[in-house]
Amino acid sequence: MRESEFLLRIRPYLYEKEGLVSSADEDCAVIAEGQAFRLYTVDALVEDIHFKWSYFTPYALGFKLAAVNLSDIAAMGGIPEWALLTLGFPEPPRGDFIEGFYRGLVEGLSRFGARLVGGDTVRSPVFWAALFLSGRTENPILRKGASPGDLIYVSRSLGASAAALRYFLSGEEPPEFLRKAHLFPEPEISLGRLLSEKALASAMMDVSDGLLLDLSKLCRTSEVGAEIEEVPVAPGATEEEALSGGEDYALIFTVPKEKERFLLESVDRPLYRLGKIISQKEKIYLYGRPVAPEGFDHFELG
Amino acid sequence: MRESEFLLRIRPYLYEKEGLVSSADEDCAVIAEGQAFRLYTVDALVEDIHFKWSYFTPYALGFKLAAVNLSDIAAMGGIPEWALLTLGFPEPPRGDFIEGFYRGLVEGLSRFGARLVGGDTVRSPVFWAALFLSGRTENPILRKGASPGDLIYVSRSLGASAAALRYFLSGEEPPEFLRKAHLFPEPEISLGRLLSEKALASAMMDVSDGLLLDLSKLCRTSEVGAEIEEVPVAPGATEEEALSGGEDYALIFTVPKEKERFLLESVDRPLYRLGKIISQKEKIYLYGRPVAPEGFDHFELG
Repeated sequence: MRESEFLLRIRPYLYEKEGLVSSADEDCAVIAEGQAFRLYTVDALVEDIHFKWSYFTPYALGFKLAAVNLSDIAAMGGIPEWALLTLGFPEPPRGDFIEGFYRGLVEGLSRFGARLVGGDTVRSPVFWAALFLSGRTENPILRKGASPGDLIYVSRSLGASAAALRYFLSGEEPPEFLRKAHLFPEPEISLGRLLSEKALASAMMDVSDGLLLDLSKLCRTSEVGAEIEEVPVAPGATEEEALSGGEDYALIFTVPKEKERFLLESVDRPLYRLGKIISQKEKIYLYGRPVAPEGFDHFELG
Repeated sequence: MRESEFLLRIRPYLYEKEGLVSSADEDCAVIAEGQAFRLYTVDALVEDIHFKWSYFTPYALGFKLAAVNLSDIAAMGGIPEWALLTLGFPEPPRGDFIEGFYRGLVEGLSRFGARLVGGDTVRSPVFWAALFLSGRTENPILRKGASPGDLIYVSRSLGASAAALRYFLSGEEPPEFLRKAHLFPEPEISLGRLLSEKALASAMMDVSDGLLLDLSKLCRTSEVGAEIEEVPVAPGATEEEALSGGEDYALIFTVPKEKERFLLESVDRPLYRLGKIISQKEKIYLYGRPVAPEGFDHFELG
């Protein structure tokens, strides 16, 4: 069963209220409160499914868990606030495992002003960690909102994290640039804030499961399609890794044509234009040819 | 390693701010916001550690997970609001497993006005479920706050859940009253609200790990001790199960002597007086004899 089928089945149980509560199909639950919106997200990492201890230290894993959740808040244009950790682990932790993991988590969170305020710890046959993170924003940018003609941008080159994983899984040490992209991905909090404050993006999400798969989700929610003409491939990565590797934690967003100049004037760093939104629902064209989205399905069962 | 040792080790990583943010030693993280307080809690259930499928249906497990988290909100005198579920499971779910679990969860939550608004689902070698729940209150009742002379009350008789587990683990079907206490425990949301609104309790928590263990936690945080003179044992349970069984999800709270009459006039249901708070720090006396707290350590490793 793929994640998309699962999401269809649980959808009836998620509470939504037009304009007040968005939950399904978004990076965070979005809840209107007065003039602002509250953002809630959870993400989990499971040993041997999402990572292996052969290339992760406890510190790096705590730091990455923070980054993965912060990226969801970034994808809504939010300011991160409060975190709670649920930890399951199998045996008396060795040495400074606990201190290493918590130090990584808290350092990762506090770089963006987020604070760990609670949690629950349980015994489990296998190690897993689930983080809750809250945030707030006055202008949440949803996946819904892209219109035909909007330009598609991504905040950095893609594929570095997947390339690092290729090294790790073959037992080799990747070059530092790739290693850092996989172990210490950078959440795009400040870019997300800028796009939200200046109302520059019509739709946005983060690239966690691979460019093609994530773009197809954005298109499905917005009821549009996309034409990709250029793909920014990270140095050391293959184009396949850039298209479908996942765990990039870049932001992908759409910009109305008339706002493009204002966008490029407002952001003092490179941004990468991929192509544009088209009206054909859920169709993705890559260099003119239709493609079926593939990526890392964190969920895929059986 | 026991939970208490673990909590000592992670304490340096939890953010606290006098009067504004309480996190360690409480049932929920408590965060001041304007004139009110926001409550955040997480709880997890792991297959074969906290339950077995031999006596739980997916529906009952979803319902219980809701109850466990609702009980934490009740223990602060809060109104539950928003929930996010993180689910890890090992194989393609059979039949209507997903629908059963989510239906139980959502029905459990919605009885008290709480709504499921998001989550994350991942593959895992073993089934586990972690629920985040938020709430709010104008007057949070902390574990800290009990003073010598305060009377100790519990909201219902104890041990029924542990008694049911005794039946389940020996392969027998327990009597309905016990079965319900274990599978469908009742969170004390309305009593918690009343105690908060009328400022009747000086300290409060829920009984999840057993009366003696939980009372000793309340005493440690309040820097006091306790004398127990009466223990309300649930029909069908042993006194040992009432003292140390756990998973009761009753409220245990302390009441200043001068408020006792107002308490009993305000609550139109039976309450059980256990004894009183004494000044000897962390000393618990049962029928005049000092006892070492024992209970279910959900966490205990190795």
